[in-house]
Amino acid sequence: MASDITLYWASGSVPSWRAMICLEEKGLSGYNSKFLSFQKGEHKSEEVLKINPRGQVPTFKHGDAVVNESLGVCLYLENTFKNQGIKLLPDDPVQQALVLQRTIEVDNIRDKAIGGIFHYSLRTKPEDRDEAYLKGAKKALAEELKTWEGYLAQHDGSYIAGKDFTLADTSLFPMLTFVVRNQLPLKERFPRLASYYERLKERPSVKTSWPPHWQTTPAPHLMKDA
Amino acid sequence: MASDITLYWASGSVPSWRAMICLEEKGLSGYNSKFLSFQKGEHKSEEVLKINPRGQVPTFKHGDAVVNESLGVCLYLENTFKNQGIKLLPDDPVQQALVLQRTIEVDNIRDKAIGGIFHYSLRTKPEDRDEAYLKGAKKALAEELKTWEGYLAQHDGSYIAGKDFTLADTSLFPMLTFVVRNQLPLKERFPRLASYYERLKERPSVKTSWPPHWQTTPAPHLMKDA
Repeated sequence: MASDITLYWASGSVPSWRAMICLEEKGLSGYNSKFLSFQKGEHKSEEVLKINPRGQVPTFKHGDAVVNESLGVCLYLENTFKNQGIKLLPDDPVQQALVLQRTIEVDNIRDKAIGGIFHYSLRTKPEDRDEAYLKGAKKALAEELKTWEGYLAQHDGSYIAGKDFTLADTSLFPMLTFVVRNQLPLKERFPRLASYYERLKERPSVKTSWPPHWQTTPAPHLMKDA
Repeated sequence: MASDITLYWASGSVPSWRAMICLEEKGLSGYNSKFLSFQKGEHKSEEVLKINPRGQVPTFKHGDAVVNESLGVCLYLENTFKNQGIKLLPDDPVQQALVLQRTIEVDNIRDKAIGGIFHYSLRTKPEDRDEAYLKGAKKALAEELKTWEGYLAQHDGSYIAGKDFTLADTSLFPMLTFVVRNQLPLKERFPRLASYYERLKERPSVKTSWPPHWQTTPAPHLMKDA
């Protein structure tokens, strides 16, 4: 039951968004949604630390079951609400293997976009930034996205693992949106990813859970020249 | 059937080892085991690139199903061979949530031990190493292990998520062994983790898949003073 579920989340947290999309897709939209402000440090509040000692988002509770890793939240929801909402993990072995592969493989985009560029830029003053490093990091991100552009060319499907929306899309879409928000010129360089982005951004589960401040506050445009 | 399964792996690859432990635990020990030499660049061979364009290990194939992310391999095996071998993911929601949480949370040890220390040391000549950075990285790893020491204190179980061996142990054990091999003084500093290590290293699935060169070649001892 959705009313037994509590999700603590923060606006702009890619893992939070993934969990929220999975909740919506599994037909659990009535869950207790607890918005936390990073600015106010609410993710380190006693209430959160009690169930998530790392003080991170998402923090997820269903009855006495607790999972705080976003992929874990999605797998838990799929297993626990198997016959409800969208089937995120297909039964067919070949399809399931592909969905699991793409779902986890998205970490490669995360490492390059968030680890390689975003975190580096956050902790380095503009005047101290190593431009050669940043150029390499942006090139690596562009190479990575080229791989995903290729995946979309491999099949006729509208989604990253074929014709159906799956767990793999709940991984890819929030990460891709982070990159788009940072002004990576998707349309010019990766037309299939751009069209995937345009299609998925209209999906109800995605629209309803869109990070609120991303609608109103500009991004730092870190990936404009990637 | 085990004979329909092919696993490409390399000695000393923590993700390869995780997949191998899962194969053993699911009673699939007759799989086609293809050892690849990193030194000879065999993970970049045409045979591997055909099913794993990233040229990484593990590379896994079951009939036409392909998964190359080690967590994906384990989840696939658990779903596909549900009623065979050890149950890696419990049905009980509270237990399942904990197992998923610990399984993925091991990435925090990986990031600190492999990302923070091992890779840094690999790509930096001993004379160029930033000792202050390394001291911080070792402290972060020790703090992380303290968290896991605490997890073992929370319950009476012999395993990381309770009384049974689960998917979480297939994640934690290979990573912990990497740290032990690099001489982190587990026994002195983390007695519960040390006893966990001693218990699991005798487990048949673990013994039979132990990275061969780890038995004969010394480690660089990177974590001795962590």
